[in-house]
Amino acid sequence: MVGTMAYDAIETPHAKVDRILGGAATYIALAANKFNVDCSLVSVVGDDFLTPDLERLTSQGIDLSGVETVQGGKTFFWSGRYHDDMNTRTTLDTQLNVLENFSPVVPENYTDSKVVVIGNLHPAVQLSAIEQLTAEDNFILLDSMNFWMEHFREDLDKVIAKVDLISINDEEARILTGEHSLVKAAKQIHAMGPKYIIIKKGEHGALLFGEGKTFSVPAFPIDQVVDPTGAGDSFAGGLAGRLTQIEKIDFDSLKTALVYGTVFASFTVEKFGVEAIQAVDKNTLNERMRSFYELTQFNWNPNNDIL
Amino acid sequence: MVGTMAYDAIETPHAKVDRILGGAATYIALAANKFNVDCSLVSVVGDDFLTPDLERLTSQGIDLSGVETVQGGKTFFWSGRYHDDMNTRTTLDTQLNVLENFSPVVPENYTDSKVVVIGNLHPAVQLSAIEQLTAEDNFILLDSMNFWMEHFREDLDKVIAKVDLISINDEEARILTGEHSLVKAAKQIHAMGPKYIIIKKGEHGALLFGEGKTFSVPAFPIDQVVDPTGAGDSFAGGLAGRLTQIEKIDFDSLKTALVYGTVFASFTVEKFGVEAIQAVDKNTLNERMRSFYELTQFNWNPNNDIL
Repeated sequence: MVGTMAYDAIETPHAKVDRILGGAATYIALAANKFNVDCSLVSVVGDDFLTPDLERLTSQGIDLSGVETVQGGKTFFWSGRYHDDMNTRTTLDTQLNVLENFSPVVPENYTDSKVVVIGNLHPAVQLSAIEQLTAEDNFILLDSMNFWMEHFREDLDKVIAKVDLISINDEEARILTGEHSLVKAAKQIHAMGPKYIIIKKGEHGALLFGEGKTFSVPAFPIDQVVDPTGAGDSFAGGLAGRLTQIEKIDFDSLKTALVYGTVFASFTVEKFGVEAIQAVDKNTLNERMRSFYELTQFNWNPNNDIL
Repeated sequence: MVGTMAYDAIETPHAKVDRILGGAATYIALAANKFNVDCSLVSVVGDDFLTPDLERLTSQGIDLSGVETVQGGKTFFWSGRYHDDMNTRTTLDTQLNVLENFSPVVPENYTDSKVVVIGNLHPAVQLSAIEQLTAEDNFILLDSMNFWMEHFREDLDKVIAKVDLISINDEEARILTGEHSLVKAAKQIHAMGPKYIIIKKGEHGALLFGEGKTFSVPAFPIDQVVDPTGAGDSFAGGLAGRLTQIEKIDFDSLKTALVYGTVFASFTVEKFGVEAIQAVDKNTLNERMRSFYELTQFNWNPNNDIL
């Protein structure tokens, strides 16, 4: 996984935290790693990055040899405030710091990775990482955001052309294509390169398009959302982690992987930062998967004539 | 089924119709009847109601002995305009006409019906219909709307206390309970009487609550919504029709019934008025059920240890 490591300051209508571990790659790695996958994180931090925060990752077996530490540099910092609906937010501050000159180097023993997650970053940085990959049959999952679509479209198009799956939200899909209908937007994105498209709809769940098929899942209903930060990244991480266990990645296996992603996102929002995702174990994961199964699965026999 | 029969004038961003067959009971009956159920419609019309429109119902075997024709009276008329999103609408005109003095009479041979749908009407009228029912083990499905919640709450509470299932939309659930969270709203409505609660979310699908469980379905994605009128009523009709085929109505059988309701609603919105729902046959229904199955169902073995 290639992406940001960060410190976040987060305000919600109910609480506030000043400086906690964040960053897309952090959430992606912590989620994917639950599948006991041999994974490496490619990112950059400043020398203000705390050792205990590095240990949160290494203690779970996540390889950090691809994380560059810039001496005298400061770690990427993001600050935001969530609105009453907990579904929209205002960015209060963005300090790119060491991210400004980030040039990712994929560790040599990971260039042939089977599954690769490219987190939200400048498209030129994303492309540079992808160009280091050597496996012909790898599966590349891409995240992006509206800012790159609006200001670096040419760079972004080059990246999109090279990935197998793109995972963006409904607003971003509309910006990227100019289509209001998500079905039509997905068709257009498909023509840009990716075989599979995931469109996230926040509290309304997510859609997967590919092979001429569509799959739709709701979000897992959470009694009290504490902090939505990292939900999309945990989603991508959980999905990617699951894919490493699959012999043949196709629409059907992606369906189940998308459910795992949804379940990982539902954990993340229950607590501030990475706390909840870090605490996930086999039991809590299987229990929630079972709840999600009951939430969405029904009995129907297509061979039963009912009329 | 007890409810309105009407003539509708409908405007959408794309087209306009002046006076077409409508009314909650019409949609409910046409959908439920697809299950070859012996069903009776209880309603009122004026002597302006066209014979071909009556024949649309009787030709499918729907019993109209409970439909009163008021000589010299005019049929209920509704006119509305849908906004660009096709999800919200403005009522342009409502002429209650014969509905103003509607006193429903359930035909004697239908008072012991197993499944009863009470469409959106004045709560006092709904109550009067329910009090004519004699079967102790019947299953009553109720629809209502914000107007009755805001102005006739006391009457409505008496009706809600007597039904097994209430089917309302998210905005109505919030008005009825004052709760923003749909999970909390459902709990509160459950305490008012109904064992099962369905909350419809328009293009985002629907939720079923009951027996301490939750079931969530997306809407069936439609390329081009032509006219959303009657979607909720077809939903209720399809659901109720399915229930007549079930020996024991419980949460699991309601799940599948809710899927049938969703599929019937998806047909309705594809054309103006009752045209699409009327044309549904065994093949088109089974085909769309199969598509919905593929849209929402995934493979997961709860006994598979994955971590």
